[in-house]
Amino acid sequence: MVIIAKVRVSREEWSSRFSEWYRRMLMEAGIMDYRYPVKGCGVWLPYGFKLRKLILDIMRGLLDSTGHQEVLFPTLIPEDMLAKEAEHIRGFEEECFWVTHGGLKPLGTKLALRPTSETAFGPMFKLWIHSHADLPMKLYQVVNMFRYETKATRPLIRMREVLTFKEAHTCHATPEEAERNIREAIGIYKRFFDALGVPYLISRRPEWDKFAGAVYTIAFDTIMPDGRAMQIGTVHNLGQNFSRAFEITYERPDGTHEFVWQTCYGISGRVVAAVMAIHGDDHGLVLPPRVAPIQVVVVPIPFKGAEEAVYQASREVAERLREAGLRTYLDERADVTPGEKFYYWERKGVPVRVEIGPRDVERQQATLVRRDTLDRSEVPIAKVAEAVKALLKHLTEALRERAWSWMKERVKPAVGVEEAREFLEARGGVVELPWCGDDECGQRLEEEVDARVLGTPEDVEAKPLGPCPICGREAKTVLRMARTY
Amino acid sequence: MVIIAKVRVSREEWSSRFSEWYRRMLMEAGIMDYRYPVKGCGVWLPYGFKLRKLILDIMRGLLDSTGHQEVLFPTLIPEDMLAKEAEHIRGFEEECFWVTHGGLKPLGTKLALRPTSETAFGPMFKLWIHSHADLPMKLYQVVNMFRYETKATRPLIRMREVLTFKEAHTCHATPEEAERNIREAIGIYKRFFDALGVPYLISRRPEWDKFAGAVYTIAFDTIMPDGRAMQIGTVHNLGQNFSRAFEITYERPDGTHEFVWQTCYGISGRVVAAVMAIHGDDHGLVLPPRVAPIQVVVVPIPFKGAEEAVYQASREVAERLREAGLRTYLDERADVTPGEKFYYWERKGVPVRVEIGPRDVERQQATLVRRDTLDRSEVPIAKVAEAVKALLKHLTEALRERAWSWMKERVKPAVGVEEAREFLEARGGVVELPWCGDDECGQRLEEEVDARVLGTPEDVEAKPLGPCPICGREAKTVLRMARTY
Repeated sequence: MVIIAKVRVSREEWSSRFSEWYRRMLMEAGIMDYRYPVKGCGVWLPYGFKLRKLILDIMRGLLDSTGHQEVLFPTLIPEDMLAKEAEHIRGFEEECFWVTHGGLKPLGTKLALRPTSETAFGPMFKLWIHSHADLPMKLYQVVNMFRYETKATRPLIRMREVLTFKEAHTCHATPEEAERNIREAIGIYKRFFDALGVPYLISRRPEWDKFAGAVYTIAFDTIMPDGRAMQIGTVHNLGQNFSRAFEITYERPDGTHEFVWQTCYGISGRVVAAVMAIHGDDHGLVLPPRVAPIQVVVVPIPFKGAEEAVYQASREVAERLREAGLRTYLDERADVTPGEKFYYWERKGVPVRVEIGPRDVERQQATLVRRDTLDRSEVPIAKVAEAVKALLKHLTEALRERAWSWMKERVKPAVGVEEAREFLEARGGVVELPWCGDDECGQRLEEEVDARVLGTPEDVEAKPLGPCPICGREAKTVLRMARTY
Repeated sequence: MVIIAKVRVSREEWSSRFSEWYRRMLMEAGIMDYRYPVKGCGVWLPYGFKLRKLILDIMRGLLDSTGHQEVLFPTLIPEDMLAKEAEHIRGFEEECFWVTHGGLKPLGTKLALRPTSETAFGPMFKLWIHSHADLPMKLYQVVNMFRYETKATRPLIRMREVLTFKEAHTCHATPEEAERNIREAIGIYKRFFDALGVPYLISRRPEWDKFAGAVYTIAFDTIMPDGRAMQIGTVHNLGQNFSRAFEITYERPDGTHEFVWQTCYGISGRVVAAVMAIHGDDHGLVLPPRVAPIQVVVVPIPFKGAEEAVYQASREVAERLREAGLRTYLDERADVTPGEKFYYWERKGVPVRVEIGPRDVERQQATLVRRDTLDRSEVPIAKVAEAVKALLKHLTEALRERAWSWMKERVKPAVGVEEAREFLEARGGVVELPWCGDDECGQRLEEEVDARVLGTPEDVEAKPLGPCPICGREAKTVLRMARTY
């Protein structure tokens, strides 16, 4: 087995140009075209759409197997419905797009384009839920979602029309059941991001940054190559805030009535941004095999006199790979050189390339190149399918391990403001500062560190290294802080 | 094999109450809840969503295998973009929902919620297409779509937010290629409706009723149980109307530039309405096996003393059916009687029911009941899977044949206005009247017959029975006319 490593640019160097790389790759790898003539709106391209679908398939599988049912709600939410929960409307009224006219006439009631759907589900839950036997009710939908963002927009990360939004909405008979569902949802998201090799921190958002209308919010954040943290999933315990506003009650076995307890949880197209960013490198995307639209590309390298033999062997190899259930593409384009094909498929992140040249034909072998390391190896054609499968498995593990260890190096327990600031400035990432638990101290920390509070750890035990750096009192926990998207 | 037919109400009697049945079944079978608090908007329920998905899977399979690629565009279309093609905007401006505010501030440019996406694809095609090598470009998307309908809305049939809209948009190098694509699209839609057993007439819409901006429109119509015709699919040849408006050009091999020729074609949630209406009966839905979310339901009929044996045999049967790849549901609910279960699953249109009672256990057999005829038959448990598969195949054919022969009886060639009118009043359906080809005569016919022109036949040769009933000149073709949705 001959191994040649070919990474041209160090990961650090690449990370420093991340923002430009990201915009370029969206287009060059065929994920999203962001030139659509409405600010903050982009078009999912065919290859990106397939990637999106494979990622959503994992999520649907996880939700379906845990008793969630898929539904589809309208986009339009009347103003008075959106306003029923007081905190909620305060949080969203400045972020909504409003439909005010039907044809040339003004509408009687303004309609919001959903910024999220708690208030759309509300009146329907009220109609659907009567007795304890109707609970739990666990629904989800995959839809578009709208936010009139005033901050700088960025493809997939901060858009005005989010074309990929999975939101789940559940109702429960008791607060304990709702709490158990929150844990289940966290478990689902962990399995989801694990399947994608995307590392995460799980934090309880501080009071001043929870979802508008929630009792509390648990968030998944990852660290992007430029060192900034990005929220990639949220799980909210809504308590009875919305059920009271929408009068969603159920009858207990003893005949009394009670408001339901609700939860909701969502992920968006940011997941795709995370997959691109976290596994990508200087050559382009590196897609985890499970969601790669093309898992293996076969590239014939014909030389004069051996053309037919090379094409024939390539077709045989492609056929073997397809029969083994691998998403395979045989690149027989005549007007493109093998080198251009390598470059093209590397950018698109195809996990394994199989090259077939005259020497390979002679020896009845194929040359495999794995996308993450660009290592090469040779296998007999008879064993090509199992070799590629093994390679895809290794690559999956390698991506996950590299991503996790990269992130862990960027999570830093710190004692004080100075240390935290310096770490964030030098490396980015996340700092964990001791915290007394007082909201005022937390908000002062945001100012002094010049970073945003992600919250307190939900995934590991908090180990404060000293007292609260603001008030000097004993720290009850730590606050995770980062510069964020 | 014992056969007991059990249809309680004749098809004619049932048809006369169609409208009420349809609304009731949407809710009772769990397809759509139309009580959402915005007029013309409804919620796809879990069972309906699965049906919708299985139907869309057929469409996606047909499009993917003919070189179409799936994409996803934003919903928002700026006013100036929508207005670029003059005919188009005239056709749609009174039907658009308009977004005028972001947060509390008015937007600089009004944004339409897409009523259809020719004008959203326009500027992107301009960016994507450069040379003849980029053509043909065949894209599609499955999205929601908005029409500010002023006519009476009706679930799935005429909605303000259409949650299920498949639209394809293509660009071609020559008018001949575009024309071939029109024929391919018609072929795709034929195979699609054939897979669903939904009969159709294919007509070229008259000039005065073609798609706004099209050169011509070919439409698929079916006849609903109440005798009214319903448009279920359209295919449009756009010529160069939109490519001129959006400056979508390509470079020919000789270096000259030319505007592309375009086509587009769409289907909507009406397909689901057609499937429900055309195959349904007095008991509820009858779903074609290919799209039935549950293809076979196993209902244990436990009797005192034989409970365990019945449940065990039922589980074994369900397992055999699942292993054979059938979408199977074992209804073990303890608090519901077998009779209630029959009623419940009949309403939902499950194509085959398997009953297991003590006598069945004794004889090692299962009783099969097919949903369309309610005929019963008995098969050895060892052969239950192949028997159900055979039954599903028969049922598929029977549904298709019954639907086609029902429709054909309602398509009536007529000589004159009186005869046409009488037929439509007595039976509904479609009349074919001789037509000279003059638009004025066509529009006069609409008034005199008090029906709408569907157009001229594209599926069969027109055989006018006499001269044009309006002007008396020789008829060149026939005009299909119907009362429509």
